Amino acid sequence: MIDRSTVFGIIGLGLLGGSYAKGLSENGYQVIGIDLSANAAEYALKQGWCVKAGTDPSLLGECDIVISALYPNSFIEWLKKYQDVLKSGALLSDVTGIKRYVIKEISAFLRKDVEFIAAHPMAGREFKGIEYADSGRFKGANYIVVPTQENTSEAIETAEEIGRILGFSNIVKLSADRHDEMIGYLSQLTHVIAVSLMNANDRTDLAQYSGDSFRDLTRIAFINEDLWPELFVRNKDYLLEEIDAFVNEMICFRNLIETEDYEGMKQRLKQSGVRRKAFTEAEKQR
Amino acid sequence: MIDRSTVFGIIGLGLLGGSYAKGLSENGYQVIGIDLSANAAEYALKQGWCVKAGTDPSLLGECDIVISALYPNSFIEWLKKYQDVLKSGALLSDVTGIKRYVIKEISAFLRKDVEFIAAHPMAGREFKGIEYADSGRFKGANYIVVPTQENTSEAIETAEEIGRILGFSNIVKLSADRHDEMIGYLSQLTHVIAVSLMNANDRTDLAQYSGDSFRDLTRIAFINEDLWPELFVRNKDYLLEEIDAFVNEMICFRNLIETEDYEGMKQRLKQSGVRRKAFTEAEKQR
Repeated sequence: MIDRSTVFGIIGLGLLGGSYAKGLSENGYQVIGIDLSANAAEYALKQGWCVKAGTDPSLLGECDIVISALYPNSFIEWLKKYQDVLKSGALLSDVTGIKRYVIKEISAFLRKDVEFIAAHPMAGREFKGIEYADSGRFKGANYIVVPTQENTSEAIETAEEIGRILGFSNIVKLSADRHDEMIGYLSQLTHVIAVSLMNANDRTDLAQYSGDSFRDLTRIAFINEDLWPELFVRNKDYLLEEIDAFVNEMICFRNLIETEDYEGMKQRLKQSGVRRKAFTEAEKQR
Repeated sequence: MIDRSTVFGIIGLGLLGGSYAKGLSENGYQVIGIDLSANAAEYALKQGWCVKAGTDPSLLGECDIVISALYPNSFIEWLKKYQDVLKSGALLSDVTGIKRYVIKEISAFLRKDVEFIAAHPMAGREFKGIEYADSGRFKGANYIVVPTQENTSEAIETAEEIGRILGFSNIVKLSADRHDEMIGYLSQLTHVIAVSLMNANDRTDLAQYSGDSFRDLTRIAFINEDLWPELFVRNKDYLLEEIDAFVNEMICFRNLIETEDYEGMKQRLKQSGVRRKAFTEAEKQR
């Protein structure tokens, strides 16, 4: 488990890796960070978020817990190249937004003396880079631990403890399958919707009239174009299912409007309200 | 124009009518309100928002400016029945969210000694009833005046003045056609999307995991089921066009995911970000 002597390692000092380094160091833990960019490492050192930081993977050799803050494929590639630098007995975790794919890939080649426990901090943002790092924004957010049959209970508890240290409000465990199903609906589908709303037509001529509803709906249309295509593709079974169901429902509602079926629309608006209320209630109970 | 002796009349003391009565009375104007519900009228009197209020339309006989806060068809029906109670020379305005239909219907039968100037305060909410009235929430919102060729410049200026008195931040003029096109995209399409997202599948089992993006996107899925079907139907030419373009774009993006076309997705995510940024910039300039 985690105590004051625990040394954390962070792979990738971007928005999320930087926020982790900041949060862990603010809570009194030693953090060692590496990044391809010497500038990012320098920044983390200057801010006091890392006791050591640089571009050399072997810096992580003394870390008890190593957290990758890389995108899914970069994480897998990094590990293939550099897993030898990890200390025997080290615990490895991540932040990726898709889990079946990452777990399957990694378990195929990971050293037997290193345990991987998958985790997903649901606190992404549209910005990139360590200069946007902010450990305060984990408050109110979900931290999902995604254990497999292979994980020890100690590793699972340690992952949960990391979420608590970083200040996440809601720490839950989900299977990889259930996680990916959930994320396909709550996050990936919503991003595809926001993006498609912006792309369907160029309506920037209407920008001066936009109100709350449009603003809220499209906030996430400003999206990291390097990360998300990978997340979509690696979860495409669930995501395509959600997109198809949503598109069918849109077409259904479209036809109710065309045929002026007031009762049909009213019934659907009611149902939508009832379901939305269930989400509001669940949020209140957190 | 409006001065301290101007007497306002409000038809329909619900969420919006109540907010108007509150806002106008707080700014020192006399307001007379009517509603089908004696309770709502009683409430407005008790709060001091109306100097007179009741269920009798003839109460409006002394009003210089009468604003209907009814739904589109109720407004038209009310006017057909009760337009005789209005004072000769009175100015009539409204709050409805569709303009071509309302203007066309009303101009067909309105008394020649009463002028109708259409207006749309873009400050709807998911709640109903005068107990939710709140004049503070017009700050930051758009107030659209929708003049026709028939309107006098005095009526147009008076309508703008009402928006200013009520505290709207952005007061603009649009033709009925342009208004309906704008509202079809920025408001109606977004509501159909939010509702369809809730209705595609019952995903309330995922409620405990929802984050900011889902919450923002579905806030408007809690929607007034008595009002919106009418708005959709009376603007269906523009709305169906927007739905179809959006659905096509969703299907396009779906196919990029299925075929794992990373470059195609990346290009679309970039474009989405650029357009979204234009909206953010326009908002800053208000």
